[in-house]
Amino acid sequence: GNKGVEFESADKDFKFRMGGRIHADASYSSGDDNLVNRGTTTHAEANDGTEIRRARIEMLGTFYKDWDFKSQWDFADNSVSTKDLFIQYTGLKDFEFTAGQQKQAFSRELQESSNDMLFMERSLMNALNEPTVDRAIGLNVGSFQKDWTGQVGIYGDTIAPPATGVADEGWAINSRWTYAPINEKTKLIHLGIAGNHRNLNANNDVAGGVLRLRSETSHMSNLFLIDTGTIAGVDAIDMVGLEANGLYGPFTIGGEYTKMWVERKNAVASQSNLDYSAWYTEASWTITGESRKYKKGKFYKLSPKQNFSLKNGTWGAWELAGRYSEADLNSGVGTADNGGQMSLLTVALNWYLNDTIRFMADYNKTLDLNRPAVATVGGGEPNVDTFMLRGQLAF
Amino acid sequence: GNKGVEFESADKDFKFRMGGRIHADASYSSGDDNLVNRGTTTHAEANDGTEIRRARIEMLGTFYKDWDFKSQWDFADNSVSTKDLFIQYTGLKDFEFTAGQQKQAFSRELQESSNDMLFMERSLMNALNEPTVDRAIGLNVGSFQKDWTGQVGIYGDTIAPPATGVADEGWAINSRWTYAPINEKTKLIHLGIAGNHRNLNANNDVAGGVLRLRSETSHMSNLFLIDTGTIAGVDAIDMVGLEANGLYGPFTIGGEYTKMWVERKNAVASQSNLDYSAWYTEASWTITGESRKYKKGKFYKLSPKQNFSLKNGTWGAWELAGRYSEADLNSGVGTADNGGQMSLLTVALNWYLNDTIRFMADYNKTLDLNRPAVATVGGGEPNVDTFMLRGQLAF
Amino acid sequence: GNKGVEFESADKDFKFRMGGRIHADASYSSGDDNLVNRGTTTHAEANDGTEIRRARIEMLGTFYKDWDFKSQWDFADNSVSTKDLFIQYTGLKDFEFTAGQQKQAFSRELQESSNDMLFMERSLMNALNEPTVDRAIGLNVGSFQKDWTGQVGIYGDTIAPPATGVADEGWAINSRWTYAPINEKTKLIHLGIAGNHRNLNANNDVAGGVLRLRSETSHMSNLFLIDTGTIAGVDAIDMVGLEANGLYGPFTIGGEYTKMWVERKNAVASQSNLDYSAWYTEASWTITGESRKYKKGKFYKLSPKQNFSLKNGTWGAWELAGRYSEADLNSGVGTADNGGQMSLLTVALNWYLNDTIRFMADYNKTLDLNRPAVATVGGGEPNVDTFMLRGQLAF
Repeated sequence: GNKGVEFESADKDFKFRMGGRIHADASYSSGDDNLVNRGTTTHAEANDGTEIRRARIEMLGTFYKDWDFKSQWDFADNSVSTKDLFIQYTGLKDFEFTAGQQKQAFSRELQESSNDMLFMERSLMNALNEPTVDRAIGLNVGSFQKDWTGQVGIYGDTIAPPATGVADEGWAINSRWTYAPINEKTKLIHLGIAGNHRNLNANNDVAGGVLRLRSETSHMSNLFLIDTGTIAGVDAIDMVGLEANGLYGPFTIGGEYTKMWVERKNAVASQSNLDYSAWYTEASWTITGESRKYKKGKFYKLSPKQNFSLKNGTWGAWELAGRYSEADLNSGVGTADNGGQMSLLTVALNWYLNDTIRFMADYNKTLDLNRPAVATVGGGEPNVDTFMLRGQLAF
Repeated sequence: GNKGVEFESADKDFKFRMGGRIHADASYSSGDDNLVNRGTTTHAEANDGTEIRRARIEMLGTFYKDWDFKSQWDFADNSVSTKDLFIQYTGLKDFEFTAGQQKQAFSRELQESSNDMLFMERSLMNALNEPTVDRAIGLNVGSFQKDWTGQVGIYGDTIAPPATGVADEGWAINSRWTYAPINEKTKLIHLGIAGNHRNLNANNDVAGGVLRLRSETSHMSNLFLIDTGTIAGVDAIDMVGLEANGLYGPFTIGGEYTKMWVERKNAVASQSNLDYSAWYTEASWTITGESRKYKKGKFYKLSPKQNFSLKNGTWGAWELAGRYSEADLNSGVGTADNGGQMSLLTVALNWYLNDTIRFMADYNKTLDLNRPAVATVGGGEPNVDTFMLRGQLAF
Repeated sequence: GNKGVEFESADKDFKFRMGGRIHADASYSSGDDNLVNRGTTTHAEANDGTEIRRARIEMLGTFYKDWDFKSQWDFADNSVSTKDLFIQYTGLKDFEFTAGQQKQAFSRELQESSNDMLFMERSLMNALNEPTVDRAIGLNVGSFQKDWTGQVGIYGDTIAPPATGVADEGWAINSRWTYAPINEKTKLIHLGIAGNHRNLNANNDVAGGVLRLRSETSHMSNLFLIDTGTIAGVDAIDMVGLEANGLYGPFTIGGEYTKMWVERKNAVASQSNLDYSAWYTEASWTITGESRKYKKGKFYKLSPKQNFSLKNGTWGAWELAGRYSEADLNSGVGTADNGGQMSLLTVALNWYLNDTIRFMADYNKTLDLNRPAVATVGGGEPNVDTFMLRGQLAF
């Protein structure tokens, strides 16, 4: 079937599945011709061209009914990046225990699979979340009910070897709760709240490396319009996230907000505490009428009513979406550690040929910049727009 | 069966296959004891020993009848090297659309799988093709008929991250056409022609890195008898390739020719335009009588009439092959950018135990050298011969 | 079933299996707070935290009845590490031929799979074996009878690219013989002897790099209490290993001894020949009564009589084990090349929930140190203890 290779023992106590995904991208930028890094004469430019954004294989399965595992690796850029790698115990009613590398419980957008997202890349809000609450090695306890979910997890660092020398790992504790007061197939209200506290280690390492908040114009561009640079002397990070989404037939609307407080060690007088925030709001319309899906606090892509077929003259499903997002990396305390403020408009057109194949076109328009990380050669504000295409195969 | 793991839905609209290959090599060189890099006193030597030449796994399949995908990774040398990684649409009669990382359409020898080659390594001609028309990310449109094939493709760079900093990717357009005026199982004439135009990016990057043409005595030797070094200031590359092959029962004979023109940016007076050429001719005889196979412009290895079996006293198939190849990396314009000229004789004995296992023995004799990249300590011309063995398992 | 995905052709001439393992660890050290590297003021510390110790996938199978292959890769630390990668011929009665990357024939402990070990890490004796007789590319001929086994192999280097420049690979020849005078399911005596001779290449490379003997307090700690540093100017290495083990119902007892002689090139007067030795003794008791398993000179983990199940109120199998090990890296010839001497006590409690899932807790106590590689800030001897936990899923 369309779910890759699946096996099941007769009593269903043992299951095994192999899956994979290919995301093949192309991107083109305008307004990036005469840029320099802020305060320098170093040429900056959004690299245009082609890229394999994701190339993943995954194996997952169930042993002795109550024990699940999942392993997922990405081989894009010819390097190994371990994504999910965990063991799960589901033998206790109402609770799931998950040990290993997994996404920490924070942000609806971050929890959503890249196969399911409305847009090719996550919003500007992800500049705060990716370095802090993405995958790490830890233990999560969750309860997933029909209308609400709750999770608490404790975490060390990621699977990647430590960025710097000799020191015990840092650790984090986080929690996410969601509630769906209306929860029908074509009518849904989703609300969520999450918190995260992370203690950095003696060498100032966050989960996957140093703390640096920034946003790239496209995954392959190597151009970051806002960028805090490495934030030194960090003692701890606290975060709060709020989520609200609604679905009504072929329409969805929603948004999220994240606030981050960075506590410094105050070893250096200039290193004061910092706070950052970011948010987005988005809306989508399935032109062909299908509804997006929702289950246990997560959204999933729609399934076309009719698959694309030249022979049958059917065209799959078409979806239109828009998003406005803002990230404020200016902490307001002096000029140091001010990474810039930015707002971005994204418009997306998605074509679902069937449950396996999807094509995506995204247009990103930079709306407003305040102390950006790059400037025009003449010293003005950059005005970079990006057009991106994706062919996606996922099973 | 011998094709690894294969699954098929009842209506054959969904298929999935896992395959893999192990090429385990050993190589020994003579005449490499007292060498230095040309114009230096740096010791040069052909490293002898053992190597896993290729260790690949692949997953491929079909979704909804018309959509194919292929993914193939090589893990030899303990690093990830993505080979094929593409999505294919076959739902339109007479045309195939392939998007993702794939071999560009140029050279019969390059298109042939390493599982099928008559010799352990490709000819000296590959010194021109490997850096330019091997795999890249792009879109290919092909038509594959019984007696002829035609392909046109546009390409960016490879999946590997760019070698150097800030710049849009380069691009290429290429095309290959083949025709088989005689096309029977044991009688065949194959003719082919191909062209390639590649525009380098602002940083002088070809598909996978800088432009450097060279040939190694064996894949593990680290000894390059001819070598242009990095060719700087390149603006564009044009290539033409010609192919002719014949098959008659257990015999094959054939050859190819490639010509390359390198257009410089002429920013530096000494950087004049260059041209290089290379060719080979080869012949093979299956002692046990089997014929090699041909399909849609590509050759495939033979299938033994009887598999090797000690119990049954059967010995599989045996094949003898010889090849003469030449590469002229001397452009003739001044002494700079002259990489040397070389001719090489290769004799091969191949033992096919069954459709999965093959053993190969190759002997490479350097015939003639002109301005080679290495010299003997006394200043003379090197005379390096190489003996190589391979155990191959592929499914 | 619990062996991952298995397929078999009707005549059993073709088989294919996919397997994998996840070892997720956490470790905590005491007594490591005020350490420096010996003779320096550089801070040393045992890194505590979480780690994916092993994340492996494997494909293995049989073609045409007589031809086996195995491939196994580890992706922990987000890098590729090829483990087994070989082709095997089993068509000749009483003999097995194995070509490719495989463990060299030396030491019962090294041959044992990490899925089966009584303890989370191998003993101090492995400081001698891991750099020399672990996996390499070669050809092994073995005979595996019910009560005895014999193997002889010749090897080049490992699959990893050479550590240093231009030189032919080194090579090794080794052999291991085992005999079980008593060989019943619950009553067993195992005896073994092995020898290894390795010739280093011109650049002083052992199989996988330079010769350096050392022992880490846990795999993620980056703290080595004994460490020879790089041993320069080595010409050849000779090793002898002795093994003795007994099993009686739920009890096992055993030990091994390895002696290593390092022959120097004597190019430098101070580089005299060296000899090192190490050994361990261990005992285990399965509280729930199961016996560990033995086959063809190797031990395997027990299989629980009853699997863990909350519903059935069954608890799987529990195992208690202790080990005393010593490594003497002081060669006794002058102070150079003296890596230190160490003895270590390990106590382990293992919980087998079923044939796939196992949890392990290990406590390592450093007993005695002589010229260790680290010292306390005050110049005293370190006293580092380590507590480790593992969740293991293997199929």
